[in-house]
Amino acid sequence: MTVGQDPVKVMKQEVGKAAAARVKSGSIVGLGTGSTTAYALEYLGARIQSGELKDIKGIPTSFQASVLAKQYGIPLITLDECDRIDIAIDGADEVDPQKNLIKGGGAAHTREKIVDTLAEEFIVVVDSSKLVDKLGSTFLLPVEVLPMAIAPVMRKIEQLGGKPQLRMGVKKAGPVITDQGNMVIDVKFDAIANPAELEKTLNNIPGVLENGLFVGVTDVVLVGEVKDGKPSVREF
Amino acid sequence: MTVGQDPVKVMKQEVGKAAAARVKSGSIVGLGTGSTTAYALEYLGARIQSGELKDIKGIPTSFQASVLAKQYGIPLITLDECDRIDIAIDGADEVDPQKNLIKGGGAAHTREKIVDTLAEEFIVVVDSSKLVDKLGSTFLLPVEVLPMAIAPVMRKIEQLGGKPQLRMGVKKAGPVITDQGNMVIDVKFDAIANPAELEKTLNNIPGVLENGLFVGVTDVVLVGEVKDGKPSVREF
Repeated sequence: MTVGQDPVKVMKQEVGKAAAARVKSGSIVGLGTGSTTAYALEYLGARIQSGELKDIKGIPTSFQASVLAKQYGIPLITLDECDRIDIAIDGADEVDPQKNLIKGGGAAHTREKIVDTLAEEFIVVVDSSKLVDKLGSTFLLPVEVLPMAIAPVMRKIEQLGGKPQLRMGVKKAGPVITDQGNMVIDVKFDAIANPAELEKTLNNIPGVLENGLFVGVTDVVLVGEVKDGKPSVREF
Repeated sequence: MTVGQDPVKVMKQEVGKAAAARVKSGSIVGLGTGSTTAYALEYLGARIQSGELKDIKGIPTSFQASVLAKQYGIPLITLDECDRIDIAIDGADEVDPQKNLIKGGGAAHTREKIVDTLAEEFIVVVDSSKLVDKLGSTFLLPVEVLPMAIAPVMRKIEQLGGKPQLRMGVKKAGPVITDQGNMVIDVKFDAIANPAELEKTLNNIPGVLENGLFVGVTDVVLVGEVKDGKPSVREF
């Protein structure tokens, strides 16, 4: 690490590099969303440009991922053009010891779940601040909802014991609008006893597209840490 | 019945009239989609115009329902402006003896489910050809899906034992696009043993918005029949 570099930034770069290093030539790669994942895409692009990796095709999980893929020279395809995804790399807002996740801080969790659940190997890249004993400890659970159904879905979530709030935009008046044209409700649950059950219950509320619980999807978690000012990456 | 009138049309009108007759002044009314429901909206409008019904507000389940409501003089509000729906009137493509439904022939089932499930009283209006012993006997099950996820959702449905087909447009090249901008997959299941379970399983596939199974939602079914050339309406 060069003197003067931000250790947190270097740590995120190292995690991204470790994930990108796992991609093999000939792979269809799910391209996640977020700041750590962005470094994975940068290193994936670098490996393609250097000729080390050949015949890579990326499937983006968001408009942001598409833009970065183009910037780093990763060729893109759509889910209509392939019948498998070999490996997906994506971030998370919370990771529990069973590798279950809360995602959706970037309002991309619906497309992320479509792509990440299809991958043969799903690698999550995070810094250690995202590790929790219980999901919902630090992060609100994002739920993507059709705009017309916001009011009844919020009432239904309250009946389920959650405290919902509509995610408001920054640099945009009113609510955040997702890449699919919908809104996001962030929900505080005092405890998420059964993530698999809550995931299904929320998805069955009319007007809900998808929630940020990813249960039983993750294969590998790469965790970046800064110890004594030095970045390191561990796997679990 | 005037000589020369189509008995099927008269029967649908009678069912629509019977449903509209159940609406009371001061009600918020869910306005369904489809040919029989359209007659209910027509008679609801007539009762409002005659002064018999006062202070009615309608919540449409589709663009079609909005257009008819305006045509028949039914004032509209959105779900953001109310905290209840008193009564909803809607059609169905199949009705089983437990009053469970398959809906979605008009590709409006997502908004219909949002509205119909909120109603204190949900009245289904059908002709007797829609009555089945088992759901899925005659009608394919519609599933609304985000366009990017069509291919993986179809594969997943095949793994569940269904035969999926993308609903194609008429007077439109390529697939039908819903009022929400999505696509519809129609699925043949050989038998739907547990509709409540299948509803949840399908809704939990990433990329699925909502499927056409309505389980435990219906309060009253009004069935129109033509017997000896005479229309009649019965309730169950």
